Amino acid sequence: MEFKKILERDSKVSWKKYVPTLSIDCAIFSFKDSSLQVLTIKMKGQDSFGLPGGYVQKDENIDDAAIRILKNRTGTENIYLQQFYTFGNLNRSEGVFKDYDDSLWNKQRFISIGYYALTDHAKVNLNIDDISTACEWKSIDDLPPFMMDHREILDKALITLREQLSNHPIGYNLLPEKFTMPELQKLYEIILDKKLNRGNFYRKILRYDILTKLDESRKGGAHKAPDLYSFNLEEYNKALKEGFKGSW
Amino acid sequence: MEFKKILERDSKVSWKKYVPTLSIDCAIFSFKDSSLQVLTIKMKGQDSFGLPGGYVQKDENIDDAAIRILKNRTGTENIYLQQFYTFGNLNRSEGVFKDYDDSLWNKQRFISIGYYALTDHAKVNLNIDDISTACEWKSIDDLPPFMMDHREILDKALITLREQLSNHPIGYNLLPEKFTMPELQKLYEIILDKKLNRGNFYRKILRYDILTKLDESRKGGAHKAPDLYSFNLEEYNKALKEGFKGSW
Repeated sequence: MEFKKILERDSKVSWKKYVPTLSIDCAIFSFKDSSLQVLTIKMKGQDSFGLPGGYVQKDENIDDAAIRILKNRTGTENIYLQQFYTFGNLNRSEGVFKDYDDSLWNKQRFISIGYYALTDHAKVNLNIDDISTACEWKSIDDLPPFMMDHREILDKALITLREQLSNHPIGYNLLPEKFTMPELQKLYEIILDKKLNRGNFYRKILRYDILTKLDESRKGGAHKAPDLYSFNLEEYNKALKEGFKGSW
Repeated sequence: MEFKKILERDSKVSWKKYVPTLSIDCAIFSFKDSSLQVLTIKMKGQDSFGLPGGYVQKDENIDDAAIRILKNRTGTENIYLQQFYTFGNLNRSEGVFKDYDDSLWNKQRFISIGYYALTDHAKVNLNIDDISTACEWKSIDDLPPFMMDHREILDKALITLREQLSNHPIGYNLLPEKFTMPELQKLYEIILDKKLNRGNFYRKILRYDILTKLDESRKGGAHKAPDLYSFNLEEYNKALKEGFKGSW
């Protein structure tokens, strides 16, 4: 079906089904090939990319709406999903639906609640729906142009993610179950976009007590086999909820 | 005018003037008598207290709405105001307007964007409007019962404020222009709700480079007159925007 027809058909349903004024946009991150990646979609009729999003049903909590939207796009749930900021400037979508009737649902003013998610690359099954032509991972080092204010939403998600690193653990869902210290440090360096001192990083991360040193090491390299670690999920989840102790 | 009549009169205007579904609630903090205080209001017909709030005009950015709401209640602007979380569970206001017609604006489902503000106690002029019976500061150590989910909103504001301390400076607008190190440490202790080690606090806060040591000291006590400091606003505002360097 033609894109315009689909939108007009969906519009009637949307007015009945969703709460007005509110949308959700998701910055879904994953870690692959030593790079932080973000999930992008391309809507039919648009040249630029966008973040996957959706609306809040009238009988739905906003967190549940975010989980549903994420599941529709990636096939996964039970992943780390965090609301980070709400974007409400006037004219956020100006221009995008200018050729449509003013009664079109999508043409209304929307205030968008941003969520970010950290997902395991291997578990995600991307889903292209009938209003998009692409759904793909992009490295944050090589981003395409974004529609509307989606680049601003993504940048704010990244800033939040970086700031969260001072108070909260990260890595679960992004690293394999068993990983080496250099791999964990690399993840931090990529998110923070800077080199870290090895000794300081080790001291700090070990003090947070979220790692379990395994009784095995990574075989195969030319060097001494590096020790393997996994997250102590009990401590990890506690720190995720309550924050690290003793930052001040 | 009777409260019910006022609400019904305002309801008609609100449907035309504001974007549907969205409200704003503000946790407005101040520091007085060695205690962190939060501004509360009491709505007519309610036994419990609430946070001051309002709605977003159709031609208004959400940040501007928050500034307007804050100004209406406190008479001040140009104060530190920060969006921190959006609250969108179903039935947030269940019960509050149960005796009213379903068409009442206030009875609709609202998703509320939370903002917190840090204000100078001395500069605030509290304003009781025609739907409230009280507008007053309450110490966070001795809080009254709150209506709806306003206690949850306040608690989340406090958590955010505490977490922000790892990455951002605090104190401007809360302390007098000139202050001593013990006064600054006391502010941190009150917000974090724990005692801090004096030496660690001094080292850490000085490393952030946001203080200017003044060429004067506080006279009058029995002990050695303590040195006075002020914030270096250029560095302070930079750190507010960009975060402290080198937390990792």
